[in-house]
Amino acid sequence: MAPHPLTALSEDEFKAARDIIANLFDKDVSLFFRCIFLQEPKKEELVPYLQAEHAGKLTDETSRPPRRARVQYDVIRSGKTPEYTQSVVELKTGRELDRTVAAPHFQTSYTPDEFAIFQDACVASPMFKDAMSEFSLPENFTVTIDPWPYGGPDADKEDIARLMQGLVFARDASKNNIDSNHYGYPIPIIPVMDVTTRKILRIDRLATGGAGDGLAPHPRAAEPKSLFASNVSSEYVPELLEVPQREDLKPINITQPEGASFTIQPDNLVEWQKWRFRLGFTPREGAVLHDLCYDNRPVLYRLSYSELTVPYGDPRPPYQRKQAFDLGDGGFGRVANNLELGCDCLGAIHYFDALMADTEGNPTVAKAVVCLHEQDNGIGWKHTNFRTNRAVVTRLRELVVQCVVTLANYEYVFAYKLDTAGGITLETRATGIMSVVAVDEGKTESAYGAVVAPGVLAQNHQHIFAVRIDPAVDSYAEGDTRVVVEESVPVPLNKETNPYGNYYEIQKRIIERASWLDAEPKLNRVIKFENRTKKNAMSGRNVGFKLTPSASQLLLADETSQVSKRAKYARHHVWVTGHRDDELWAAGEYTNQSREEVGGVWDMVQRGDWFGDEREVNRDGGRGGEGRKSSPVVWSVFGLTHNPRVEDWPVM
Amino acid sequence: MAPHPLTALSEDEFKAARDIIANLFDKDVSLFFRCIFLQEPKKEELVPYLQAEHAGKLTDETSRPPRRARVQYDVIRSGKTPEYTQSVVELKTGRELDRTVAAPHFQTSYTPDEFAIFQDACVASPMFKDAMSEFSLPENFTVTIDPWPYGGPDADKEDIARLMQGLVFARDASKNNIDSNHYGYPIPIIPVMDVTTRKILRIDRLATGGAGDGLAPHPRAAEPKSLFASNVSSEYVPELLEVPQREDLKPINITQPEGASFTIQPDNLVEWQKWRFRLGFTPREGAVLHDLCYDNRPVLYRLSYSELTVPYGDPRPPYQRKQAFDLGDGGFGRVANNLELGCDCLGAIHYFDALMADTEGNPTVAKAVVCLHEQDNGIGWKHTNFRTNRAVVTRLRELVVQCVVTLANYEYVFAYKLDTAGGITLETRATGIMSVVAVDEGKTESAYGAVVAPGVLAQNHQHIFAVRIDPAVDSYAEGDTRVVVEESVPVPLNKETNPYGNYYEIQKRIIERASWLDAEPKLNRVIKFENRTKKNAMSGRNVGFKLTPSASQLLLADETSQVSKRAKYARHHVWVTGHRDDELWAAGEYTNQSREEVGGVWDMVQRGDWFGDEREVNRDGGRGGEGRKSSPVVWSVFGLTHNPRVEDWPVM
Repeated sequence: MAPHPLTALSEDEFKAARDIIANLFDKDVSLFFRCIFLQEPKKEELVPYLQAEHAGKLTDETSRPPRRARVQYDVIRSGKTPEYTQSVVELKTGRELDRTVAAPHFQTSYTPDEFAIFQDACVASPMFKDAMSEFSLPENFTVTIDPWPYGGPDADKEDIARLMQGLVFARDASKNNIDSNHYGYPIPIIPVMDVTTRKILRIDRLATGGAGDGLAPHPRAAEPKSLFASNVSSEYVPELLEVPQREDLKPINITQPEGASFTIQPDNLVEWQKWRFRLGFTPREGAVLHDLCYDNRPVLYRLSYSELTVPYGDPRPPYQRKQAFDLGDGGFGRVANNLELGCDCLGAIHYFDALMADTEGNPTVAKAVVCLHEQDNGIGWKHTNFRTNRAVVTRLRELVVQCVVTLANYEYVFAYKLDTAGGITLETRATGIMSVVAVDEGKTESAYGAVVAPGVLAQNHQHIFAVRIDPAVDSYAEGDTRVVVEESVPVPLNKETNPYGNYYEIQKRIIERASWLDAEPKLNRVIKFENRTKKNAMSGRNVGFKLTPSASQLLLADETSQVSKRAKYARHHVWVTGHRDDELWAAGEYTNQSREEVGGVWDMVQRGDWFGDEREVNRDGGRGGEGRKSSPVVWSVFGLTHNPRVEDWPVM
Repeated sequence: MAPHPLTALSEDEFKAARDIIANLFDKDVSLFFRCIFLQEPKKEELVPYLQAEHAGKLTDETSRPPRRARVQYDVIRSGKTPEYTQSVVELKTGRELDRTVAAPHFQTSYTPDEFAIFQDACVASPMFKDAMSEFSLPENFTVTIDPWPYGGPDADKEDIARLMQGLVFARDASKNNIDSNHYGYPIPIIPVMDVTTRKILRIDRLATGGAGDGLAPHPRAAEPKSLFASNVSSEYVPELLEVPQREDLKPINITQPEGASFTIQPDNLVEWQKWRFRLGFTPREGAVLHDLCYDNRPVLYRLSYSELTVPYGDPRPPYQRKQAFDLGDGGFGRVANNLELGCDCLGAIHYFDALMADTEGNPTVAKAVVCLHEQDNGIGWKHTNFRTNRAVVTRLRELVVQCVVTLANYEYVFAYKLDTAGGITLETRATGIMSVVAVDEGKTESAYGAVVAPGVLAQNHQHIFAVRIDPAVDSYAEGDTRVVVEESVPVPLNKETNPYGNYYEIQKRIIERASWLDAEPKLNRVIKFENRTKKNAMSGRNVGFKLTPSASQLLLADETSQVSKRAKYARHHVWVTGHRDDELWAAGEYTNQSREEVGGVWDMVQRGDWFGDEREVNRDGGRGGEGRKSSPVVWSVFGLTHNPRVEDWPVM
């Protein structure tokens, strides 16, 4: 039996994909493999298959989308800039179906292997040694560098080199514990490396003043400046804590003696209560939910985290370049934790592994990168008949699909939660250690963040997430799902329709063109995904699911700034765009060192797609004739503005 | 040892309070007791005691506020309107310290005893029988009436009678189950009763049309109209379900083999982790948290639910009178569920009882009206050192103080949650059965709600809650706590302070006068309770707690409407008012049949109190010289706009 079209590549398929690519290039060319993963079928290929599957009519004759792989790799020719290349290969025929080479000004995401070269290259550099000679560290302190995406390029340079920056810290090696927390000892320099040549290009010196000290670094002093004189511990690993951990919490045991209520097929079909979906995993997105159905009726074709940008609000250069795109510059899948380490969940847990490419294109197993478990979430519903005192109460049960990712200092916990009431909740928790920089010891006041320990400034910053939702309400047929905005609107008191002033009106507006909108809690604005024709027999209303957009603060950076231009998706809460296969990235495919968002939701809206044909829409407003009739994809943008507190230190 | 000043009245104290009042009146006067409960000490009496207590300096010589009780009762003299009376009595001396008699246009809340008289009075009334003769019910259907607060008075009448209205339903008695759900069979009349005389005054006929059918009821037909012809089941008790309950959820067992981690003293002092508080309970508020401290440092002097209004958005008269104030018209404490019935929580649960007055003033035990339990809430914090793959992870543990209340068809689940990260969360869940009314069978479209079953319209409505927060940050001293509004505000790109446009500014504003403000997520507006002088040693900032106001939709009713005037508190998210003892009610003390909010937060703001003396404030703006220097109390208002769905039926 052939695998389901959405099943991840097997090890054999993975190797076959690598071999197909390897055989296409001459021996004098070296290939640096980045990712190999399933190329999902085009929607028009997959939908007929899913329709047959859900109708129970799959047979050997059912047309099956061919198995394909996407291979991302650098083509390295001696003396030339590596070419970042993506190929789609068909596994059965061994053919390369498509190849694109990124334009030189686009930079792909970093791999862990690229990050790994930074520390050694830096420490070995005379330029770095010279910069470090400005400081004197306590005995036994050793330099530890966190590699970081470079951020946006410098406006005054035409540079298209692949760059990386580093945040420099020291670790107190006298503790003889390599997990001693180095983030408590920031050193105020940022080295910049050319990733291709592994050459340190320059060392930026950093401002370390408090309130009123201006934006520029202090002038370099004649004598080395002593750092970490007060040497305050910021430890978090239990064996290094000066104050012991709490020991007065008695255990809460969560057990499932009969096991979990879900079933999982070898091809990652998950079934639980009336829900079913296929669990995917990609290097960039982490866990992805495909073909999510309730009671065998489709709800979502695909659900995924698409992007996350983290801009810092410290105006002192070069901190404007502290702006990571955690999917586009790195990728959640690549940095997903092994969830068997550190007991992340309670109950009957099922773990999923994934295959990742090493630089040779070999499959390596990333263990337990996604977990699935059930949890109790309190009272589901309850009613007591006050006449009889008879109470009936149910519990709310949730199925949780969880990933935890580590991005240097920072951790995110991502959970897709499905519940027994038919609800879908995406829960995003931020934890780990704040990104901190040096501040002169003794200074406590700063307009740019909070001093959380002597010499340690945690800068104000934001996290702006984008989730991609490809809805398919009770049908996969093209054009059957529409997006509707619904608001609850006050109505002035008037004799005809509102004589006592208590009436409010529910207003609906069908989204007919690709567009954006913002959350508006004052109007209780919600976004509905509706089937265009199927109606609930009781209410006469179109069947649908409702998205409650989060009214969280959007990107604060000035719209003329590079920070804002790179993340135009972060300017609005909801984007509705026309579907295209493989168009998954809210800030565009290439975020690393981007000057601005290219091919993201902003551009998708500009091209002017339209949906349905309820009434004539203006079809010539699109950019260069790219617009077309399409099915709507919804992007939900939400975020956290994090103005740090001392209590967030050392681990939030 | 005398009881702690915040301990609830003992049974003996309760009876003593009753006796003190009973002895004050002649034999020809009858007393109808409503409530007897602890009169909390004045703040200026209690604070010195709490300060001594927290300093470990309580001795027999410590000045102790006298034990007092508040007694609420009607004084009934033959042939006269009952006088709603409140007395404060001192238990040691047996003296009545204070007595107030409500003005005749104020109505106090209903007691369960008052509600209980409605059905019989109604069914016995010839007027009701005549109204019912308009309808023909299926055989074996029996009339069941839900008593409801009357709502706002009629604008055109000077009537000050104590009224009650009833929503009329039928129950299918052929099922031989008194818990068969009558809400599926609404009958379109509303009887109105004079509570004092128990006389049915009139029967309002209700509009039952769909979209386009106008606001008036259909004319009465010559022949009785058949109701419930389709007789669709809306059952929820398990033995009556036509589709069996789910049986495929395997158990999740939550056990605490070593018991709970909290301790509870007989005087309801609760200690858990670094938290401690005293649990209070009042007939109107339900659970109240007093003297909430973290690490023996005060955080809140008192925390309570203050009000909840539920206005319905159906403009067809008399539905504008469907506006309950669930605390002021009824009281959470009075309708709190016995939580041992219906297994509301999992783990090691501690239940609290409360004493309630019967109409004779005798104490009766309300069993298990509050429960306390711990729960696990997922990952607390986590960090993985990417260099070593060492993961350290903690769980977030919560202590939950929970009440569940039943208001006829509706249930609320209220939880105060304290957590191991120092957070305080108020969680409010709405469940139970929607308030439904009749719609002509066969009609599905309505502008006023959703048809959830044949002949059953669930009307659009709102729930607007108010929580009262009396903050005391790290000190109980008068004037030490201030309220600050903090916003994260964009800054235009400029050479001097924001050369790259990534900077944003944190702006703070001290609230110097009683005032209101709204949530503003665009500015990440938060409300801080700060100690005016104590600073965190590391950050140099005033120590404090932050309130994140919920940006939920506020009251939609037109501001000129009675619905809006009765609930002015529901027009803004946050109110900051000057403290007065016993001033606990966001919509004023008397909400039942109120024409407008009197003595609520609106009026408290108008009187012009001011806080602190950082700079000169305009002190002559207050109403009639009532304003004075005071400590701030914060009221947080949040809500749900509920436009019903078929899926909310029969139990949400």
